[in-house]
Parts: sequence; structure tokens; C-alpha cells
Amino acid sequence: MATAFERVTRFIQRLRDLRGGDEPWLPTFPPDEDVSRRVAGGSRIDPGAVERRWGLLGASEATRGQVLDPMTVEQMPAYEHNIENFVGAVRVPVGIAGPLRVRGLFARGDYYVPLATTEAAMVASYTRGAQALSDAGGCTSVVVNEGVTRSPVFGFKDVVEAGQFVTWVAGQMPTLRAEAEATTRHGKLSDVSVTLEGNHVYLLLEFFTGDAAGQNMVTIATAAVCRHIEANSPIKPKYWFVEGNMSGDKKASSQSFQSVRGKKVIAEASLPADLVQRRLRSTPKQMVEYYRISATGGVLSGNIGIQGHYANGLAAVYIACGQDAACVAESAVGITRFQENPDGSLYVAVTLPNLIVGTVGGGTGLPSQRACLDILHMAGAGHANAFAEVCGALVLAGEVSIIAALASGQFAQAHQKLARAKET
Amino acid sequence: MATAFERVTRFIQRLRDLRGGDEPWLPTFPPDEDVSRRVAGGSRIDPGAVERRWGLLGASEATRGQVLDPMTVEQMPAYEHNIENFVGAVRVPVGIAGPLRVRGLFARGDYYVPLATTEAAMVASYTRGAQALSDAGGCTSVVVNEGVTRSPVFGFKDVVEAGQFVTWVAGQMPTLRAEAEATTRHGKLSDVSVTLEGNHVYLLLEFFTGDAAGQNMVTIATAAVCRHIEANSPIKPKYWFVEGNMSGDKKASSQSFQSVRGKKVIAEASLPADLVQRRLRSTPKQMVEYYRISATGGVLSGNIGIQGHYANGLAAVYIACGQDAACVAESAVGITRFQENPDGSLYVAVTLPNLIVGTVGGGTGLPSQRACLDILHMAGAGHANAFAEVCGALVLAGEVSIIAALASGQFAQAHQKLARAKET
Amino acid sequence: MATAFERVTRFIQRLRDLRGGDEPWLPTFPPDEDVSRRVAGGSRIDPGAVERRWGLLGASEATRGQVLDPMTVEQMPAYEHNIENFVGAVRVPVGIAGPLRVRGLFARGDYYVPLATTEAAMVASYTRGAQALSDAGGCTSVVVNEGVTRSPVFGFKDVVEAGQFVTWVAGQMPTLRAEAEATTRHGKLSDVSVTLEGNHVYLLLEFFTGDAAGQNMVTIATAAVCRHIEANSPIKPKYWFVEGNMSGDKKASSQSFQSVRGKKVIAEASLPADLVQRRLRSTPKQMVEYYRISATGGVLSGNIGIQGHYANGLAAVYIACGQDAACVAESAVGITRFQENPDGSLYVAVTLPNLIVGTVGGGTGLPSQRACLDILHMAGAGHANAFAEVCGALVLAGEVSIIAALASGQFAQAHQKLARAKET
Amino acid sequence: MATAFERVTRFIQRLRDLRGGDEPWLPTFPPDEDVSRRVAGGSRIDPGAVERRWGLLGASEATRGQVLDPMTVEQMPAYEHNIENFVGAVRVPVGIAGPLRVRGLFARGDYYVPLATTEAAMVASYTRGAQALSDAGGCTSVVVNEGVTRSPVFGFKDVVEAGQFVTWVAGQMPTLRAEAEATTRHGKLSDVSVTLEGNHVYLLLEFFTGDAAGQNMVTIATAAVCRHIEANSPIKPKYWFVEGNMSGDKKASSQSFQSVRGKKVIAEASLPADLVQRRLRSTPKQMVEYYRISATGGVLSGNIGIQGHYANGLAAVYIACGQDAACVAESAVGITRFQENPDGSLYVAVTLPNLIVGTVGGGTGLPSQRACLDILHMAGAGHANAFAEVCGALVLAGEVSIIAALASGQFAQAHQKLARAKET
Repeated sequence: MATAFERVTRFIQRLRDLRGGDEPWLPTFPPDEDVSRRVAGGSRIDPGAVERRWGLLGASEATRGQVLDPMTVEQMPAYEHNIENFVGAVRVPVGIAGPLRVRGLFARGDYYVPLATTEAAMVASYTRGAQALSDAGGCTSVVVNEGVTRSPVFGFKDVVEAGQFVTWVAGQMPTLRAEAEATTRHGKLSDVSVTLEGNHVYLLLEFFTGDAAGQNMVTIATAAVCRHIEANSPIKPKYWFVEGNMSGDKKASSQSFQSVRGKKVIAEASLPADLVQRRLRSTPKQMVEYYRISATGGVLSGNIGIQGHYANGLAAVYIACGQDAACVAESAVGITRFQENPDGSLYVAVTLPNLIVGTVGGGTGLPSQRACLDILHMAGAGHANAFAEVCGALVLAGEVSIIAALASGQFAQAHQKLARAKET
Repeated sequence: MATAFERVTRFIQRLRDLRGGDEPWLPTFPPDEDVSRRVAGGSRIDPGAVERRWGLLGASEATRGQVLDPMTVEQMPAYEHNIENFVGAVRVPVGIAGPLRVRGLFARGDYYVPLATTEAAMVASYTRGAQALSDAGGCTSVVVNEGVTRSPVFGFKDVVEAGQFVTWVAGQMPTLRAEAEATTRHGKLSDVSVTLEGNHVYLLLEFFTGDAAGQNMVTIATAAVCRHIEANSPIKPKYWFVEGNMSGDKKASSQSFQSVRGKKVIAEASLPADLVQRRLRSTPKQMVEYYRISATGGVLSGNIGIQGHYANGLAAVYIACGQDAACVAESAVGITRFQENPDGSLYVAVTLPNLIVGTVGGGTGLPSQRACLDILHMAGAGHANAFAEVCGALVLAGEVSIIAALASGQFAQAHQKLARAKET
Repeated sequence: MATAFERVTRFIQRLRDLRGGDEPWLPTFPPDEDVSRRVAGGSRIDPGAVERRWGLLGASEATRGQVLDPMTVEQMPAYEHNIENFVGAVRVPVGIAGPLRVRGLFARGDYYVPLATTEAAMVASYTRGAQALSDAGGCTSVVVNEGVTRSPVFGFKDVVEAGQFVTWVAGQMPTLRAEAEATTRHGKLSDVSVTLEGNHVYLLLEFFTGDAAGQNMVTIATAAVCRHIEANSPIKPKYWFVEGNMSGDKKASSQSFQSVRGKKVIAEASLPADLVQRRLRSTPKQMVEYYRISATGGVLSGNIGIQGHYANGLAAVYIACGQDAACVAESAVGITRFQENPDGSLYVAVTLPNLIVGTVGGGTGLPSQRACLDILHMAGAGHANAFAEVCGALVLAGEVSIIAALASGQFAQAHQKLARAKET
Repeated sequence: MATAFERVTRFIQRLRDLRGGDEPWLPTFPPDEDVSRRVAGGSRIDPGAVERRWGLLGASEATRGQVLDPMTVEQMPAYEHNIENFVGAVRVPVGIAGPLRVRGLFARGDYYVPLATTEAAMVASYTRGAQALSDAGGCTSVVVNEGVTRSPVFGFKDVVEAGQFVTWVAGQMPTLRAEAEATTRHGKLSDVSVTLEGNHVYLLLEFFTGDAAGQNMVTIATAAVCRHIEANSPIKPKYWFVEGNMSGDKKASSQSFQSVRGKKVIAEASLPADLVQRRLRSTPKQMVEYYRISATGGVLSGNIGIQGHYANGLAAVYIACGQDAACVAESAVGITRFQENPDGSLYVAVTLPNLIVGTVGGGTGLPSQRACLDILHMAGAGHANAFAEVCGALVLAGEVSIIAALASGQFAQAHQKLARAKET
């Protein structure tokens, strides 16, 4: 008997039990029933618009009070260019992980990194890793590449016209740069590359975006480039789109992993064996053995890169510091590598090619988010590279801690102790 | 001249310019300098501990006031099992996207979905998609599979012992189930599968986790299974680890994409051509043409699955509703498919195999997060499947809106209008 | 200046230089020009048909003589069910790699493996690896899983009908098995699993195929299953296809890599340090260091699995032994793992989940191919599992040899010495 | 009950049945038993050495006669730099697929492509596709990029030294080129790029290799580059290897797929609807519908790119024409795209970025292989680009034919008719 079929059958039975077997498969809505009302006011944030939105929701006063807390009410106008259909704010608790000693090109010092998360044991684990790194004299963390991408696509009659277009556009770099940079004060078009697929031409435009994460900036600059091409190309595209889904925006991608999207950071350290024993209750040999078996596990399950749990630290620091949390999907790839040094100490490194971070723009200027950047002394212009280096160091701390925990058998216990009160 | 080398050279020059060329490559810290102090108090949340932590940070009163707002101070004890080294909270603005009419196995009705984000245009875009779906009579969204995984790994002397172990363990299902289920009230061990690699055996344990996302639950249950195996297996593993990194936890993974991790949801709808024109300012043909070219773009850049921007909607609803935001890394994969129906309407579907969601446990009980679930009438036990179906419908709305915007050339403009005040 | 654009420009210039700049971009054929004649006789193999085909080609007598050598002329009828438009044969030189001592479930003894290749150094390298394994007492090589797949797909009106279909079909296993097995004497339908994507249902049918590779067998059996479903399903598919491109046929695939396609074989051995030194001129430490860095290289470049050069050995033994050489595309994935044992010896293992091999059917009965199987004493029924184990052992020998060569710096020299006479 | 475990149990039972349950799990060889003899003579090809090798094998005269046919005996010396441990040749039957009308930058005319295969229905299917393309006026097939890669890797003390090395090496392009090109008459170092991972630096050297596939050439040139670096770098690597497994050699790789390895070729055509009907017994709509569902199937199963069966045509033409058949593993990736043109005709295109082909070197000069190139009028220098374009056109023909067959339901029947005599 086919096993997979058995599983399907069991699952269907389970669905029936959960729902009550006699209910119809799906509900129907009477055709004359109105879809309910629109949301009032769009991007406007004023008490009246907010009031009308809550009216739609039919929520209790208690619910409203939790989301529309006094400080959020007071600071309402601050959110006007960051959200639409505003009804309040969710408070995500913040803990600090550190001290984390970083030797970077831009970041240098001991940091307490604000992490916004609702998952028990997470801040404790990153703190343990950070302290181990700091005890070892700190970690090195350096920005080694940079570039935010957009990938417009152009369709032609056939591959011959597509090829003629490529021949033309390859000579247009100075013009494309001028068009792009006319739309932005801080963005620089740093590189363009080309992918020919049948009669389609995807361009990959890469930008330096200053201290902003820059995803809007590059979209607007790319649109200007496309309009210029449309107006001036001797071979007219039959159609074009400002983004052909090759940029890796908001998703894990082999291409971004293999090149750069945002900032590429490498963080590394060497941990003496006695420190590993004392701080992490493991040994370099044990950690390397676990690392090897888990790296193979990652390959067996088809990950992009090799890693433990980059997403935990990145999501938490992104939320705390006003970054785009959706970019965790693209940032949480990279290569972790642990190996024994000839002297018996433990070499640890992470390589993160896709950190989409900034210290201006996006959510970085919102009141509590800016305060979290202030904790790092990194609010505002001039700090994006340093912030990226701290993110890299943080991820390294997280890998050190989880690999030690899994190598030495403490992992399940830590979660049991810190989280079990909540969930069974 | 090698192009890539030119780029390296330009980047190095840029780094020098940014940092000032005369600074030493990396800082050194004097060996006698103390790494700064530990963080006080660990998981304790009380005014004294919080005070001591702020003392460490050396932050201004203004900064502290933003993070330690009055309501957070008042509700401090609520966070005690969700975070360590607590210093306050970050307020993430919430907008509502809707109405979103859903015909599900569990979700049925018109929803306004709370989205926590700091990125302009995002809620507006999801709202536009939601309203288009609702105008079309709503979308279908159904849970079709379920299972949260852990993958312990066991190392043996050689493949012969590994094979003998597999032979033994394959007969132990009832016992393993009993051991696992003794640790949890709600978890059920639903399936176990085996991967042999050389002399290593990875087990993949799959659980039903009730209304919890369940990641701690399955860790604890898996640890119990492993201890039982260690104590009882006639072939002793040389070493074993509770997680061999095959579970897909916190990362995009081919294996999870191809099976299930959390809940698998499919959402679909058909949009009449005139509705596409009126609501989305595009046409089914144009949207299908863009879809095709962007699906190819996704394949060209090596995505897992085919999709536009699942991560945007998922990150926002996860943060608002107390889900684990780091799971966006694994949840934001799937297949979007748009095609023309024979009658000229537009068929749209998303298939999301890895939604890690719950309505109990994790951050779902925190004050403002629970309030967001209340907006959906989905707080507490009995709602996880319905919440997953709303997540699926939300993602569908986002794909409809972004594909329409990119197909019709509105994408850059929308971002320019809603976000440009902030960033240049 | 954009680097990629520079490269495009250089490449275009190079094309112009190669072709002569004044030629038109592409040729045009006069519209009235006949496309040349059809090929005579299709699948018939007789002297007249062959003669007419050579007539079409306008080749010299010398050319014809090389392809239509006397023995091929004599044995012409033997090829009748293996090829169409037959014009002769290509002679691929065969070398033997061995002795290769194998301890398998089915293969047991010392083998000289016939390898058909035109690449210098290849047989020498596999021989070196084979002899090192044999000196160590041989390698273990075992079949641990089996199954050849086809993936028909069914399209429905919507996901609700798709779900109802799944509910029905999951109860049909005995019937589907009966339908499938009525078409074949040796095939057994061993498993069926289901993938729901939007309103599409992909089934994955898995078969045991006896001693045949079995790809035709499973296609015919699957067609029978589909016709049965079409005739009997209470929910009629709007369309269906016998293969929805999920089976992994003729391509590397994450799914096949993670499960099985054909036979899954694991081969392993332990090599004492002095043997590594003497036979391979390397050390276990050096080889493990190279292995680690090359495994990371494979992950960085986005391979499926981790491996050196499986394709070399597999292509050569497949061609020699009448296997389907196109299946190298799917077979050449897996996991190589090298690590030091506590006693200082070198543990080496390969895991190959997708060996598509047989000893009956396909090209296995052709005169020289059957002779190559005879060299292994594996021609005809009853030998497929043993042959798969020898393939696994062969791949292990190749990994041992190439990793030793790359680790110790002999790689370039070997190629220089054995191949350089031919190519500069 | 766990389904996967059930399957394991069934498979173990099946193994026992096949082997006979009482046999010991694995054989042991007596420790004093000699591993059998070495192979005589290595790379020497002379009657005496061949005789001694056959002596080792213990094969019958009949077996020997099939492998050591008269023409192979006569031509023995021709194989001397292409194989070691030579014992004869395997004859792979060759059929011709065509006429295939190609409009290329280099290939122009109507070709009959020699295909060496033992799989029934294959040549017939490619012929059908070729004739359909030719009836439509032929296909366009153009080389659009080129480059054969090697990826040496260098290990350093830490990322700081690695970065200093990158800074140095990026200025060395002219020197590296001179060193590389001193080793080869035809190879040109065209590009170098850099990947930093922790304290490791992988270089990707790209070469133009003239009319040779060039894999030995680039290895030897890369070794010279590495020796130069070792001798001259101001920052000494702790270790280095000539190939760090990032080149994509002999394996499917995301990186090679996304750039180029060997030659990148695009082939396309438009087929009028009535031709599709008459020649292929399908319709553009039906073929596009099947294409879409199969492209999704490819994504669902985790292929690299989107394609049907590139490996079939490529393996066959590679074997016939003396290419390295193992390179099928890397060449058989790409993007197939089928869509309807506005006028109702069918647009078909394939993009193949990794064709490793040549018309000099490797096996291209062997007697029957050279004869097959002669059939194409492409033996010797000056033909590699044209041959690559024919390979692209051939693959397009194969995709057209198989997609038509699967779309219209003829697939299983064709295999049943042509192949069933052999296998059940």
C-alpha cells in the first residue's frame, strides 16, 4: 500500500475531525451580500481617519487600547510616510545582546545589540555567543562588497533584435548612469550586467545607496533608466518591465548569494579551547564535529549556503532598528564555517552577502526604532557600514552559541527552561 | 583587463575614501582592556534589572523614554517568558489591509488583516489586492497539509551499523510516538522518515502541533525520542545530535518547499477581465505576460519556487500577530501561478508549503500582539488553521497587486509617491 | 564604468573578429529553397536503408568506412530496436579500472570495471583510487533504496475539485497498482505520492523495475494508470499529461537527490594513513583539508549535493555497459564525505541516490556493451543491484583519487603528462 | 503509523527476499587473500599490453572479440593519448537526426546530426523536431557568450590577510594573463573574479579556449597562475589548491547556469499553427499549456533551469562527435520557453549557457568520432562555434518534439511502439 497515499488519507480524516464532518466543503456567500466597506483615508494619519478605521473593525475598547497606546497616539504623525491604513502599533519586546566586541573597518568597540523578538531563549543565546567572542578579544567583521540591485527586462521580436539591443546598450553606460543619478542625491549606479534568455534581455543594475537600504531609491532610478532606453534605443522593445524578478528582492536567491545584494560582510574569530570549555561548555573538536554533520544536513535538505539560524538574529535586529523585516528572507543566507586551528583553538566565520541595511530612510527615523539605533550610536547618516558589520558580528555570535548548544546537548534543555512555561 | 578585478579595485578605493586612507586597517584593543560588563539579570524582568541594563548602555533619557514607554513599563511582567535582557519595546506601526473575503475550510468571512511594517506603500498594495479579490467574490484558501519537523542525526561506525540501526528503528514507531507524546499535551508525532548518508542516519520527525507554531514543543519531544533511542538501540550510535540541520528551521530549504513545514496552504481566485481593468488598471493578458517573464526571471536567478514578494505580507502579519518573525526566512517560499481562463478571466493561485503559524504560544499572548489577533477574531486555541488560511489569502492579495503594478508600469510611481518624502 | 558591460563589448568585438565584420548578422535562405530531403526508412535497419541515408549525407567513402566498420555492418540487425535512422557506429575506446574490491549486498569480489572514454588520465585516476581501496581491504558498497518515477499531472477547475480528486485517488491504490502491473512482467508500483499546486495535482508514481533501468516500462505503466483515472474519477480532470516534469528524468533535481531515483547506493571505506601516503602521495589531514574547502566551494557555486567528478566515472561505465548515457545528468549527484577517524585513518564515503542502471533492456544486450557487462560477469537478469554497487564503488574510487591529486598538487601535472600531446 | 518507516520496512524485506535471508550481511575476505593483480602497462597501447590486460580479466574469446574488433585492433595506436589500460572499444550505434536548418553566426545550412545512443525513439523524436523546425524555415542559433573556468583557492591566516591578498591580486591582471598564456598557444585568460569566504579566497579564472573544449588547457594555465602567485604574493597563502570546486566542472551548478561555462547558445524559432498541427499533431495552445504545467513541475522538483530532456540530445551528439560525455552533467541545464505569438504561431526558444564543446583536442580526432564531425563538415580547427550552434539547434528540436508528444498524448505510445520489443 502506498505510504504517501496513507498519509494523505490520514490527513483528510484529521481535517474532517477538526472541522466537523457534516459541514459543507467551503462556504458560499450570498451573491447579493456586499463585500464590506473600504478602509477610510489611505495614507492619511489623523485621529479622525484612525477612528473611522477602528469603526470598521468592530473590535473591543480593550483591543483598541492595546494597539493604540498613549505614546503611539502622541507620535502618530511620525508614521505618516511609513504605513497606510494606520490603526496603531504593536509593541515588540526588546532585549540587549552583548557586550559584543567588534573590530571592523567601520564598527569598532563593544556593542549591546537591541533585539526585538517574542521568542524565549533567543537573546540569551546570542548574548552567550557575544560574550564568548568578546572574551576571545572580539571578532573581526568587515564589509567587503556592496550593491543594491534592480533587474528590468526587455522583450524583443527575436534573439537577433535582442542581440542588437545588447550591442547598443553596452555602449550606453555613461548615459544610463547620468539618467539614474539624476533621480537621487545619494544613489550611484555602480555596475550593469546583462542576461540574454531567448528574445528577452534582463539587465541587472547595481547601485551604491549611501546610508540607506535604498530599495525605493533604486526602483526610481531604474525606472528613469528604462524610460531613457525606451525613448532612445534604436531597437524598440515590444514590452518592458521595471523589475523582471531577477534582483532577488525579498527572497533567497542563488544569484544574490553568489554575488552581493546590499552589503556583504565577513565576521570571524578564533576561540581558545579553554574558553570554549568554560564559556560554551563544549570543545572545539565537538563543535567541529557537529558543524560538519550539520553542514551536510543543510546540503542534504537543499539550503542556499550553509548556516544555523541567521534569521533569528537578523529578524530581531532588523525589527528593533527600523530595517525592512521582510528582507530577512533574502539576508538570512550565507556560509558558516567552523574548523580547528593547528593550535587547537576554534576558527569560526560567517560570510553574509545579502545584508539589506541602512541607518537613514525606511523605518530608521521612527521614534523607538531610532532609539534602538541610538543604543548602538548608529542613528542617521554615516553609519550604514558600521551597522552592517555589527549585524555580521551578531550573526557570528548566534552561530557560535547554537552550535555549541547542539554539539554539547544543551539545546533542548535551554528551550525547555526558558520557554516551557508558555507552550505545551 | 579583467572586469571583475576592476570592480574589486574600485570597491577597495571606495572603502579607502569612506574610511580615510590613513587609518589602520583594523583597530587593536589593548590586551589589558576589560571587555565591558555583563548584562544584569538574564531573564528576569523587574524595574531594578531593567534599570541596571540601561545603566550599561549609557543612553540618553530621551532614548530610554522611547523604548521604555509608559505602557511597556506597565505591562512589563507580560514579557517574562518571551525575552531575556529586557530593556523595553519597539513600536512597529500597524495598518490594516482589507477587506479580504476568504472562503476556507476554517476561515470564512471578510477580514481586515493587521500588518506591522515600516515600509511605505506595502499596506496600500496589499489592500488593493485584497479588495480586488473581494470584489471578485473572495478567494478560496485552504490548509492542505501540516507538520512541524525536527531532524536528529546519529553517527555510526560504518554504513553496515547504520543500516542495522535503520532496520531496528523502523520497527519502533509506536514506542517513539509514546516517548514523544509523553512530553506534550498537544503535539502528535505524525510521521518519521529516514535519510542514510554514509555512516550517518538523519531522522525526520514530523509533528502535529495543535494551535501552536510548535517549534519548542517538537524540540523537547525529539530530545525525548533521542534519549530513548540512545538507551534502547541494540546498535549504539557513536554520537548523536537533536537537530542535524535537515529540518529547514529558520531557512529556505528545497526539502521543506517540496513537502511541508508548518502548514501548507493554497489560495486561489478568478478575476473577471473588467474587474482587473477597473481595480488593477491592467488586463489579464498583460498580467500573464508579466507573470511569465518574471517566473523565468526567478528561475534564472535561482529562487526556491516562483514568487513575487511573499515576505512582505508574511513579515508584517507575523510581527503584528506575535508569530516568530525569523520564520519569514522559511515561510516566504512557494509557487505563484497566474494564467488566463478560457473565458478571458484571470486565474491566480499561490501555494505556500511552509507557514509556521500559531494562535497560542510564542508571542501570541503578548498584549498588543493578542489584540491584533483579536482584530481577526483569532486569538487563542482553535484558530491556527483559520489564521494560516488568512495568511495564504493575504499573500495572494499581495501577488495580485504587485504583478498588476509591475505589469502596467505603476510600480515605481507608487513607491515614488508614498515613500519618497523619506529617502533620496 | 560598468564591468559587465565592458565584458559584453569585448565579446561582441571578438565575435566580429572571428566572423569577419562585414558578413550579415544572420544568413537568409531563399524562400523557395527546399529544405533538404527526409531521412529514409525510419527505424528500419537494412543495407538499402543505410545506403540511402549515406547518400543524403554526401560524406566521403573514408568517413563512411570509419562509421560503418565491418563488424558493425555484420551486426547491423542487433541494433534494430535501439536506434532510428541508423548509419553505423562510433567506437569509444575502453580501458579497465581496477582491481576494485567490493563488499556489497550483491556485488562481492575484485572487479575490473570497463570504462569507455576519450579523456586522457581518467582511467588512470580511477584505477589509482580503485587500487588504494583494494589495498585497504576493499570498500563496502550497498544498495539502500530503489524506485523509478513518473509524475503524471492533472488539471482541475479549482483547488476544491483538485482536493476532492486527491481524496478519491488516495483510496485507489490497489486499483492503480493492478492497472500499472497489467502492463509489465517485471515492474511493481511501489509507492505513490501527491503534490497539490493550485488547481493542479501531480502524482509521483514509483516503481520497482527488476533488472531493467525501466524508464520505458514506467512510462507505459503510468499511461495505463492515467487512462484508468480518466475513465473512473468522479471528478474529471480538465486536462492531464503522463509526465508533468516532476520525475527528474534526465536532469539533476533536488527532489530526486533528496529521495531516490533508480537505485540509491552508499559506498565507504577507511584508508590507513600509511596507505594514503604510499598509494596516494597525500595524508588524511591534507585530503580532509582539501575536502572541506572544496565542499564549501561546491556550496558557494550552488551544486546539488557535494561531489568532485562523479560524472566522469558514471559516463564511462554507462557508455561501456549499455546504460542510458543521458542519465548521467541525473545520476551525477550525491554526497562525498571525507573525514579523519580517531585512529588517524581516512574515512571516505559517497552516497548516490539516483543511479539509473540495469542489466537487461536498453543497450545492455548490444554486442560490445554486453561484452563489457560480461567482463564484470553481470550480463542479463539478476545483476542490476550488483552492478549498481560496483558503480557506487567506482565513484568512490574516483573521488579518492581526484581529492588526493588536488590535495597534494598532482592534478595539473597528471593532465599535463597524459593529455598534453593532444591539446594546446 | 509512520509511512516512511513502513516503506523502509518493506524495502528491507525486499532486500532479504532478493538475497536470500540467511546470507551474512556482508562478505568478509580472508585477510591473507591477495588483492588481485595490477593492470599491466598503464597508458601504453600495444598488442602485448592489451593481451596481458585481457589475461587478467578471464573473459571468453567471444567477449574479447566483441570489444577488440578488427578495426579497433587496426587503429589501436590512435587511442594512445585518450585512454589508459586500453582493452578495446565499445560500438555505440549512430543515427542521424535531420535535416536541421540552422541560421547561426557560424553555422548556416541544413544539417544531419549524428547521434550515438542505445535508446529507442530518441533519434526519431529529434528528427521529428528538426524537420518541424526546418519546415518553418529553420531555427536561429547563436553563440552569445564564452568562457571555460577554473577556480583555484587560497587559504590565509584570517580575513584581514585574505583582504590584503585580494587588494594585491586585483592589480596583477596583466601578469597573471602573461603567466597563463605562456602555457598555451590557443588559450586566452579573459576574465578573473573573486569570491571571499571567511579567510579563503576563491579566484574564478575564465579562458577563451579556441576550438578546443579546453579543460586540460585551463588546468595547466591555472597551475602556472597559482605558482606565480605563490612565488610573488606579498601575503603568503597558508595553503592553496588549483581547483576549489567552484568551476562547475562535471556537474550542474547554479553559478555556471547563471553565467557561462564553455559556450552559451540561444536557439529559437516560430512555428505556424498549421505546421504544428500537421507535423507535430498538436496545437500551439496545447503545447503552451503543457509547457507551463511542466515548467512549474520542474520548479516544484527543484531543477536548475527549466527544460525537458536536453541530456538526451547532448549525450548522443557528444558521444558521436568525440566530446567529453561526462560534461553532459554540466551542459544539460538551461531555459526552455514556449509561448504563443500574437499571430497564433508558437514561439520556441532554448538558452544553454554551459556547452562544453570543441572540434579539436579530446576525442575529436579519433577515427570514428572525427568521421561524425565530418558528417557535419565540422572536423578540426575553425568549427567550435558552429558546432555549438548546431548543438543548440538540436536541443531545440528535441524540446519541440517531446513537448508536442507529451502535450498531445503520444509520448507513451511512441515508446511502446519503438522500444517495447526489448523490455517488459
